[in-house]
Amino acid sequence: MLTKSEIKSLKTLQQKKHRDEQKSFLVEGKRSVAEAVKFNQGIELILLSHDMAEKDVDFISEIENHSIRYEVISAKEIDSISDVRNSQGVIAKLGFLETISFEKSLLPDKKARIIILDSVSDPGNMGTIIRSADWFGMDGIIVCGDSVDIYNPKVVRSTMGSIFHLPVILTSETIPVIEDLKKNGYLIFAADLNGEPYNKIKYPLKTAVVFGNEAHGISAVFSDLTDKKITIPKIGNAESLNVAISAGIIMSHLAC
Amino acid sequence: MLTKSEIKSLKTLQQKKHRDEQKSFLVEGKRSVAEAVKFNQGIELILLSHDMAEKDVDFISEIENHSIRYEVISAKEIDSISDVRNSQGVIAKLGFLETISFEKSLLPDKKARIIILDSVSDPGNMGTIIRSADWFGMDGIIVCGDSVDIYNPKVVRSTMGSIFHLPVILTSETIPVIEDLKKNGYLIFAADLNGEPYNKIKYPLKTAVVFGNEAHGISAVFSDLTDKKITIPKIGNAESLNVAISAGIIMSHLAC
Repeated sequence: MLTKSEIKSLKTLQQKKHRDEQKSFLVEGKRSVAEAVKFNQGIELILLSHDMAEKDVDFISEIENHSIRYEVISAKEIDSISDVRNSQGVIAKLGFLETISFEKSLLPDKKARIIILDSVSDPGNMGTIIRSADWFGMDGIIVCGDSVDIYNPKVVRSTMGSIFHLPVILTSETIPVIEDLKKNGYLIFAADLNGEPYNKIKYPLKTAVVFGNEAHGISAVFSDLTDKKITIPKIGNAESLNVAISAGIIMSHLAC
Repeated sequence: MLTKSEIKSLKTLQQKKHRDEQKSFLVEGKRSVAEAVKFNQGIELILLSHDMAEKDVDFISEIENHSIRYEVISAKEIDSISDVRNSQGVIAKLGFLETISFEKSLLPDKKARIIILDSVSDPGNMGTIIRSADWFGMDGIIVCGDSVDIYNPKVVRSTMGSIFHLPVILTSETIPVIEDLKKNGYLIFAADLNGEPYNKIKYPLKTAVVFGNEAHGISAVFSDLTDKKITIPKIGNAESLNVAISAGIIMSHLAC
């Protein structure tokens, strides 16, 4: 059983302030929650609607096998916590993802591809970039500047579970992080409207690419820190490409 | 001056039923409306907030140069018509885009690249694909199946004006359209989770690529009609790629 005050407290996790206070966030939907279970990502509690619990006994046994606490509640209660209109009837509460050591994750002594998001503000873009980075086997993502919170419900949902698959590192220490990357042999590229065509460059073993804000592009800090600007050549008339599309195209190339 | 009933009628254009009845749709935001003005796309009326009209006299003179009717109304009235939370204070009412002849647009006697959207249901995805298609100089887009309405406000907004730059053809006659393409020398490819790597194929002069629904992929009709399935090879752990990302990557390759 969940008390009214527990439900109220879960609901507050829709807001960043309360996520930061409780160091927890919500994951919604069967697929994403199943990925969190599979990748054993510090789930504190799973909520299931009566309907869902009856329909999906296999899922329940998997949850039980992992000794994760779960509660079956009414669809109405699920809806009161949920961020989406038609909830699937599955919500998990997770502690913030383990802060994996920066050195271990991003400074390995091998070929590595890192994506840096500098003030990417749209949650759908952020989530989609994490999902694409997972598809193309990138080694990690550094999120900095005024980027949207990676635990924002829409970000988490748009990653489709990929947020559990690769290191996503939040930092407010942008300059030291970039300097560390450089010291460890990384070349830092920045995606921009002007620059060398991205597909005419020989990328070194250790490559990091920065993508900037949807409206303002790369920030001044990164303009100074990057080694080279790269661009996706335009053929038609559009004024710009969406940042998640640019990132997808450049990552697909880096993955080759 | 706008009457109350005119404002009410404009507001109904947020709904497909009323768009189809009036054969009109709304475009919001300075950039998109400016593109519509520039590409002379049958604008019936432009609404400006007092604020916007005062601030942007150049825009007003451009509107006047094109002899387009405009009305300056209160921000509150703009908000009552608008689909977005923080309206920029510019909304245009346009007649449906000219139905450009299929033969003329899509069956030219030259190299051509066509994108077919088969039941793409998310407005953001649809708009972003149109924007990317414009960037990469695709020759046209055919929208069919149960795709979202191309005049949906979120689709129009996500195209960032690109909907005015290239032919976007809506059809309920999927099979005859594909047969016409084939008769005219097109090879039809379908993006799928299984298929030949998209970047290992020599595409013919006339190439069309089909992208399917976000959850269900390519429909049975297209599975039968396509000449070859192509895929974007996966390296990491994500279950799938977002359809707008797949389309962006494949279009970037077709553009080369």
